[in-house]
Amino acid sequence: MAMTRAHPHRGAIRTSIATVCLSGTLEDKLAAAAAAGFDGVEIFENDLIASPASPEEVGRLCADLGLSIELYQPFRDFEAVDEDRLHGGLRRAERKFDVMERLGTSTMLVCSTVSPHAVDDDELAATQLRTLAERAARRGIRIAYEALAWGRFVDTWARSWDVVRRGDHPALGLCLDSFHVLSREPSPAGIAGIPGEKLFFLQLADAPQLSMDVLQWSRHHRLFPGQGAFDLATFLRDVLDTGYSGPLSLEVFNDVFRQSDPNRTAVDAMRSLRTLDEAVEHRHRAATTERAAARPAEATATGPAAGQAAGQAAGALPVAPELTGHAFTELGVDAHSAARVERTLATMGFAHRGQHRSKPVQLWQQGTARVLLNTVGAGDEPGGIAEVRALAVDSVDPASSARRAEALLAPVLPRTRGTAEADLSSVAAPDGTAVFFCRSGAEDHTGWLSDFILTGTEPAGGTGLTRTDHVALTQPFDWFDEASLFYRSVLGLEPHHDTEYAAPFGLMRSRAMTDDERSVRIALNSTLLRRGEWAPGVPDPQHIAFATDDIFGTALAMRERGGEILPVPDNYYDDLDARLALDPDLIARMRACDVLYDQDEHGAFFHLYTEMLGSRVFFEVVQRVGGYAGYGSVNAPVRMAAHRRSRLARR
Amino acid sequence: MAMTRAHPHRGAIRTSIATVCLSGTLEDKLAAAAAAGFDGVEIFENDLIASPASPEEVGRLCADLGLSIELYQPFRDFEAVDEDRLHGGLRRAERKFDVMERLGTSTMLVCSTVSPHAVDDDELAATQLRTLAERAARRGIRIAYEALAWGRFVDTWARSWDVVRRGDHPALGLCLDSFHVLSREPSPAGIAGIPGEKLFFLQLADAPQLSMDVLQWSRHHRLFPGQGAFDLATFLRDVLDTGYSGPLSLEVFNDVFRQSDPNRTAVDAMRSLRTLDEAVEHRHRAATTERAAARPAEATATGPAAGQAAGQAAGALPVAPELTGHAFTELGVDAHSAARVERTLATMGFAHRGQHRSKPVQLWQQGTARVLLNTVGAGDEPGGIAEVRALAVDSVDPASSARRAEALLAPVLPRTRGTAEADLSSVAAPDGTAVFFCRSGAEDHTGWLSDFILTGTEPAGGTGLTRTDHVALTQPFDWFDEASLFYRSVLGLEPHHDTEYAAPFGLMRSRAMTDDERSVRIALNSTLLRRGEWAPGVPDPQHIAFATDDIFGTALAMRERGGEILPVPDNYYDDLDARLALDPDLIARMRACDVLYDQDEHGAFFHLYTEMLGSRVFFEVVQRVGGYAGYGSVNAPVRMAAHRRSRLARR
Repeated sequence: MAMTRAHPHRGAIRTSIATVCLSGTLEDKLAAAAAAGFDGVEIFENDLIASPASPEEVGRLCADLGLSIELYQPFRDFEAVDEDRLHGGLRRAERKFDVMERLGTSTMLVCSTVSPHAVDDDELAATQLRTLAERAARRGIRIAYEALAWGRFVDTWARSWDVVRRGDHPALGLCLDSFHVLSREPSPAGIAGIPGEKLFFLQLADAPQLSMDVLQWSRHHRLFPGQGAFDLATFLRDVLDTGYSGPLSLEVFNDVFRQSDPNRTAVDAMRSLRTLDEAVEHRHRAATTERAAARPAEATATGPAAGQAAGQAAGALPVAPELTGHAFTELGVDAHSAARVERTLATMGFAHRGQHRSKPVQLWQQGTARVLLNTVGAGDEPGGIAEVRALAVDSVDPASSARRAEALLAPVLPRTRGTAEADLSSVAAPDGTAVFFCRSGAEDHTGWLSDFILTGTEPAGGTGLTRTDHVALTQPFDWFDEASLFYRSVLGLEPHHDTEYAAPFGLMRSRAMTDDERSVRIALNSTLLRRGEWAPGVPDPQHIAFATDDIFGTALAMRERGGEILPVPDNYYDDLDARLALDPDLIARMRACDVLYDQDEHGAFFHLYTEMLGSRVFFEVVQRVGGYAGYGSVNAPVRMAAHRRSRLARR
Repeated sequence: MAMTRAHPHRGAIRTSIATVCLSGTLEDKLAAAAAAGFDGVEIFENDLIASPASPEEVGRLCADLGLSIELYQPFRDFEAVDEDRLHGGLRRAERKFDVMERLGTSTMLVCSTVSPHAVDDDELAATQLRTLAERAARRGIRIAYEALAWGRFVDTWARSWDVVRRGDHPALGLCLDSFHVLSREPSPAGIAGIPGEKLFFLQLADAPQLSMDVLQWSRHHRLFPGQGAFDLATFLRDVLDTGYSGPLSLEVFNDVFRQSDPNRTAVDAMRSLRTLDEAVEHRHRAATTERAAARPAEATATGPAAGQAAGQAAGALPVAPELTGHAFTELGVDAHSAARVERTLATMGFAHRGQHRSKPVQLWQQGTARVLLNTVGAGDEPGGIAEVRALAVDSVDPASSARRAEALLAPVLPRTRGTAEADLSSVAAPDGTAVFFCRSGAEDHTGWLSDFILTGTEPAGGTGLTRTDHVALTQPFDWFDEASLFYRSVLGLEPHHDTEYAAPFGLMRSRAMTDDERSVRIALNSTLLRRGEWAPGVPDPQHIAFATDDIFGTALAMRERGGEILPVPDNYYDDLDARLALDPDLIARMRACDVLYDQDEHGAFFHLYTEMLGSRVFFEVVQRVGGYAGYGSVNAPVRMAAHRRSRLARR
């Protein structure tokens, strides 16, 4: 699917993905790339070698799928060698040109050499690449030369560009790969100065900031744009400013993606490109404004930036509307768990405020914290089913939120509704959770509360819970980065908390996303490695955290109502005392109420948990003091051990 | 279980393991450590904090389990700070001393500071540690100071020793951790010069050689001794030469062990210590001999080395007997797969040479390559069950091999046998494969062939297979390092090939072990990450590779007999031609016979595969030319894709 944004030199920017990004055989990969709407692919040589299809057949398959073959890669260790090796390299290249002709592709990636036989002589490298380009040109093929970050001599984009310039042949150009560039130079200057016609290919990859050997970093930990730490928007803007007219092609080596469903990965990849495109627009507009201000005489309406801005107006993503809070969270509960969940909500001070007009759904509310209980069929989960089925956010423009989600490839969920019921749009998050966009106060169809027959009056006296602080969803191992990008891009949230910690049954990672106003907080958790048969415990626990301004008041009120708070070991408080030397009275109160504690440079955090309710869900009560930004994950291992003890005790 | 080797200053060296090595709650960890025979544990603070048991109760639990608590750890960021922070640190320490008294343990680990508030002043650090030691001494506690490899200032063992020396207090000593020492200095000099009584604690960990941030390397990738790349035998010998009399304590932070069955991990850990102990003996003897030679006048019989040598004589591991080859490999086959496996063996030129006297087991043989087919009940595996149940090695002393295995905690397998049948000893490898020790030519009970009623004559004409080249067993993800240590230590093999490669459904790792003569080769494969629902294909494929001196002759003979060879794509040969420019006739022959190729600096490798036979097994034929040391893993992805196509085609 061509990106909607027009490019000055051609109708629209093409999207492409390297087959190496995806799991499976070549045939699996091509089908997935096509299904996700990519315009083209890079064929990774090893994928072709293992395929029984001839190059001609692969070419036809791509054509049938609507995919162009944008690049054949990689060709390695060619340049800066002695005559004998040069001849060997040219022979090898001619054989690969044969394959490319049969495939019907015309750009070959040549990586800067890592050979021990190469010499440190850029002039020689350039001359030999020119010879290669001459051979290629005879066959209508172009050479895109790329500096590997670990190249033996040529290891920066600037040096590769210098070699290409020296080589000075129309069939010799540059391939820029954002990983190789940004892993060495987070803010490269000068890329915009490359003539666009010498930039033959652009590969995009993000990565987390890791302090490790760059080759290992590249081969195992690349991510799709927006999933890592690189400033790809600025990078891409600079590249587009050169007048580059080739595809935006993703090349991501990632251990997890290599063994995940390629159809999901391809959709994730396309979503990342669309989100990146939007970010580039923002940079463009900012840059254009800046330039216009700095040089008022310049006709900014005729440059590339203007062309892109025009394209953007034509069909860009709807801007993410402002979010104003969590509207509700819906739990699916079966007959076994329903009573326990209802009792727990009651002891937490929630009131059963309404009943859905047409469905077996209860509304429980306290302050603006709302929980829907949707009765589902009984399953065979020990303790009964209880799980988060949906989360709903209040948006100032729910329709626009839904359009944005759809444009970002979020599957729109079908919804049966009764007459005069709210027509709430919802989409499926990667783990299947339904995400609703609504406007809880509205009079129109987005005001979903009218679907419920409400009890007459707001009941007196809760336990002090005011709102939903966050919803925490444990993600299936393969989908952590996908889910994180999904919530960020679809809801327009930003990650603001990313941590790893050791828990009793393995390492965990946790990432939270929120809007600028901190009105919606979604926390994603996953294991650092996929768990096996050992590592007992419920799979993928989820929880809803409710805010209070007085954790001890809430705890005491819960206890008065017969509520059970998850017991915290005395050892925990002894350690808290040792570590932080808090007021002994405060520690005594926490100990008495099973309240846990954390602090950061901005403030403090008090929280307590319920027991596990049914198969997957528990509740949390949190009090944020000052600007505490975290989620108390330092205490999560204590909670996990306690939940495990409770489960063992119940057996 | 105390190590059998006597120590000059006390009866035997104690073994210990840090709770952080093991998965689970504190209670899970302690039970596992005790079951594996450890004498003691280090209590990792976070494990205690998450436990509902009071320190007194934990102390009693350890005592009941026969475990001493050798260390409480870690105490961080104490030294080289201003007065205020010093007082805060002392308060914190006193609270931890309280916990230690309640636990009943007397050594506290203090890590060198990483605090931004610390100053670069070793004299100040020493003075403050002395103050800490004075406080500790009043309560009968000792401080073991350890240099973290990433300590802010004190980041080498030499500097930590200098600080301890300056601190000059009887309750202040050194903790050496092999990771922190060897990650920075692979061959540290001078450790043997530390007075043994100032060495309060020794932590042992191995690690693979990785080029990454040392903290991440330490926290995620440590291994048990013998599983990584460090020279722990020399290190430990140097430490013991100081007169160190504390325990050998394992402290391994490993992402996989953190989520694996702690009982298995603890056994693996104990096996690693016993194997290390043996290696230290070897170094000791070598060193003693050297010293004796250099200084003939010295009474070598009175030093520590002599004491240890005496201990060694008393109860060391039986030395690994020489192995002379693969005796047989036993496949379990059910009714569905038996015919297919038999037909394949027949087309490969194997003869059905015998039938077991009392069991439904067939002997198939060609040259010295022997396969036993053991008929098992029909299962519901698609294609029928076929899997490696046992591998047997020829040993010059099978009884001694079995005793060694048992001493290394390999579970001895029960064996039913008929009258006058061979009493073969076998043990279970980590994945359950039975490992037999025998002597195929022998007249005694180890000569297992007499259990079979043999057909009268050696049949004429096979296909040129001479012997079993290797057995390749794909390991369950969690057990790769355990299995690798098992085969190395139990069989006395050395790893000689370790590789990672990208396959269609994810990254793979492969490690091969062999004896000096290359008569027994065992290759272990696993995925780099645990696979999930995607990644189709048979789980854990296994194969037996048979050697030939003429791969093309073998291939043609197989075809003549109607044998099916796994088809190799034409693209593979086109690439081979491009890459290696081999003789076109040779490539044509390989292409005609579906033979794959690899080469290394020592020689060349030709190989072919059969289709998958039943659920898990296939055969390989290999021809090694010159000293080629590998296993053709560069071609494994082509094989995997072909096996997948065959499976899809059969559906």
